[in-house]
Amino acid sequence: MSLVLPYPYLLFLADAQTPSDAKTAFGLRDWAADRVLGEFALPDCKVTLGLPVLSPEEAQAQGARALVIGVAVDGGGLSDAWIPALVQALEAGLDIVSGMHAALGDIPVLRSAAARLGRRLIDVRRPPAGLPVGTGRKRSGKRLLTVGTDCALGKKYTALALARAFAARGLDADFRATGQTGILIAGSGLPMDAVVADFVAGAAESLSPDAAADHWDVIEGQGSLFHPAYAGVSLGLLHGSQPDVIVVCHKVGRDRMSGYPDFAVPSLAEAIETHLLMARRTNPAVRCAGISLNTARLSPTEAAAVLHDEGVRLGLPCADPIRGGAEFERLVDACLSA
Amino acid sequence: MSLVLPYPYLLFLADAQTPSDAKTAFGLRDWAADRVLGEFALPDCKVTLGLPVLSPEEAQAQGARALVIGVAVDGGGLSDAWIPALVQALEAGLDIVSGMHAALGDIPVLRSAAARLGRRLIDVRRPPAGLPVGTGRKRSGKRLLTVGTDCALGKKYTALALARAFAARGLDADFRATGQTGILIAGSGLPMDAVVADFVAGAAESLSPDAAADHWDVIEGQGSLFHPAYAGVSLGLLHGSQPDVIVVCHKVGRDRMSGYPDFAVPSLAEAIETHLLMARRTNPAVRCAGISLNTARLSPTEAAAVLHDEGVRLGLPCADPIRGGAEFERLVDACLSA
Repeated sequence: MSLVLPYPYLLFLADAQTPSDAKTAFGLRDWAADRVLGEFALPDCKVTLGLPVLSPEEAQAQGARALVIGVAVDGGGLSDAWIPALVQALEAGLDIVSGMHAALGDIPVLRSAAARLGRRLIDVRRPPAGLPVGTGRKRSGKRLLTVGTDCALGKKYTALALARAFAARGLDADFRATGQTGILIAGSGLPMDAVVADFVAGAAESLSPDAAADHWDVIEGQGSLFHPAYAGVSLGLLHGSQPDVIVVCHKVGRDRMSGYPDFAVPSLAEAIETHLLMARRTNPAVRCAGISLNTARLSPTEAAAVLHDEGVRLGLPCADPIRGGAEFERLVDACLSA
Repeated sequence: MSLVLPYPYLLFLADAQTPSDAKTAFGLRDWAADRVLGEFALPDCKVTLGLPVLSPEEAQAQGARALVIGVAVDGGGLSDAWIPALVQALEAGLDIVSGMHAALGDIPVLRSAAARLGRRLIDVRRPPAGLPVGTGRKRSGKRLLTVGTDCALGKKYTALALARAFAARGLDADFRATGQTGILIAGSGLPMDAVVADFVAGAAESLSPDAAADHWDVIEGQGSLFHPAYAGVSLGLLHGSQPDVIVVCHKVGRDRMSGYPDFAVPSLAEAIETHLLMARRTNPAVRCAGISLNTARLSPTEAAAVLHDEGVRLGLPCADPIRGGAEFERLVDACLSA
């Protein structure tokens, strides 16, 4: 029931002027290297990923199956200047994959070219049809869900880092993507925030189906139970995921909800307690293994001190997955200890 | 931003064989009498509402603006046998309003007749386009939300009864509908369970906009925070509604979630506590005014005893709105006492 993307990818940088324009492409280079063959850009692009530069035709000859739009422009739309390159990719035999708000199929020239050439236009923000209503039935296998005190502070990155760490320890683990960037990285997933409200828990159930008893699904969280706009998405995802383990993600120094200055970010203790309270509804055995703390703004010395102090204060492993190190290994240990 | 329906209605009973086939029509007769002109049925219909029997042409001549499909068939679809009567209504100058799962516009003969005649096909399960993301901004006016220990136990009925009681006391009060039957009754509203997940709280904010300080919005609850499939809808509605008052609805004797026998229905104490905990996020002053208890299966004597005992045990007014009486007046008092 998940979206499943064709790969390997050719990453399209379009006319990106700065690395931040091409954030999606950099994320794919770093987290989905085995799915990426090369990069392709317009003449006025000022960014490179350091990957082989390939035309759509060259990429297709090397096995590429899709061109992934790796840039984002304000408003989430698609620039007219990109269209000839996208048609070129379709003509070269590639599907086009987009995480943008605007639907590829709403652009007539792309729609007609794809129809003529028998190629697919895949919008990873569009959930598949026919998602089921949640059943609450307990599924086999183990599940971890990253949750957060707010949006946009590291839930996706934490899940990716934990899934990679589990695999490095020889465990059978899948990263389960719930947002567009995660879906591009994983090559499959469900865009939870775009699902009709009645089907969110059911979509989450579909995303991490029955598995072997020792298999781990490491599920990317969305939103926050404390978010005035998006808490419903977070609760549906929490209920449907039935996590055995949650890891609470937080950003040092964020004391107001991003974009909602009237709303305080909850304390970590409150966030742990509320998430466990609500999660017990579909998995009474759920536990919090620890904290993922985004310390990007701190010096290494400051970060080490904060991670140590917060870990002692909460009595839980507390790590920044970007910094890794012994704290992160302790967090991984705690996730895996039954 | 709400759906707004044309009225007065002509209620279409189709080929209903039993009153339960025509549950929607009976609900409209009882709760939206001022919007209803008459009834219209096929020759083999065995049900009457006791309203004037009118053809679409007669109803239109008396001012009717819409034919409302007042029957439901298994599967939520529309029977082919109804189509000629629906086309007749369009030709008589009426719009058609449906609360069914199947979309009216997916039926080619209706779509083409409506286009030819300039009439509207309105599916009240389809939310309007352009719903906003929630802001969390505190709005003026007063709000009450009915919440529940489960689905389908009286949240709509309780909200209708409270809105009617508030009006009977001379207050300016609006019932705010969040499901298809409620929308047909109110003539406007938003079908919360059909909204894309990211927009549920924003939709709830749209549904009860800024109002005069002494105005009450009495909002129909959906689902339950404890429901393994639908809790996300309930939380988004709770956050977006920013209720000043909640009334917790429960059905006597229901100890398992309807359709989910592995899930216990929470205790009333737990339901009150959890709803207040989550509701405080967008209205720290929220309070629980009391309990609406569905006692349909009990004798009057048994019901009176249960209502009394539960009220004493919880220290809150506890009433069955269907039975009314002094308990219900006490519940209304408690809702209105600041």
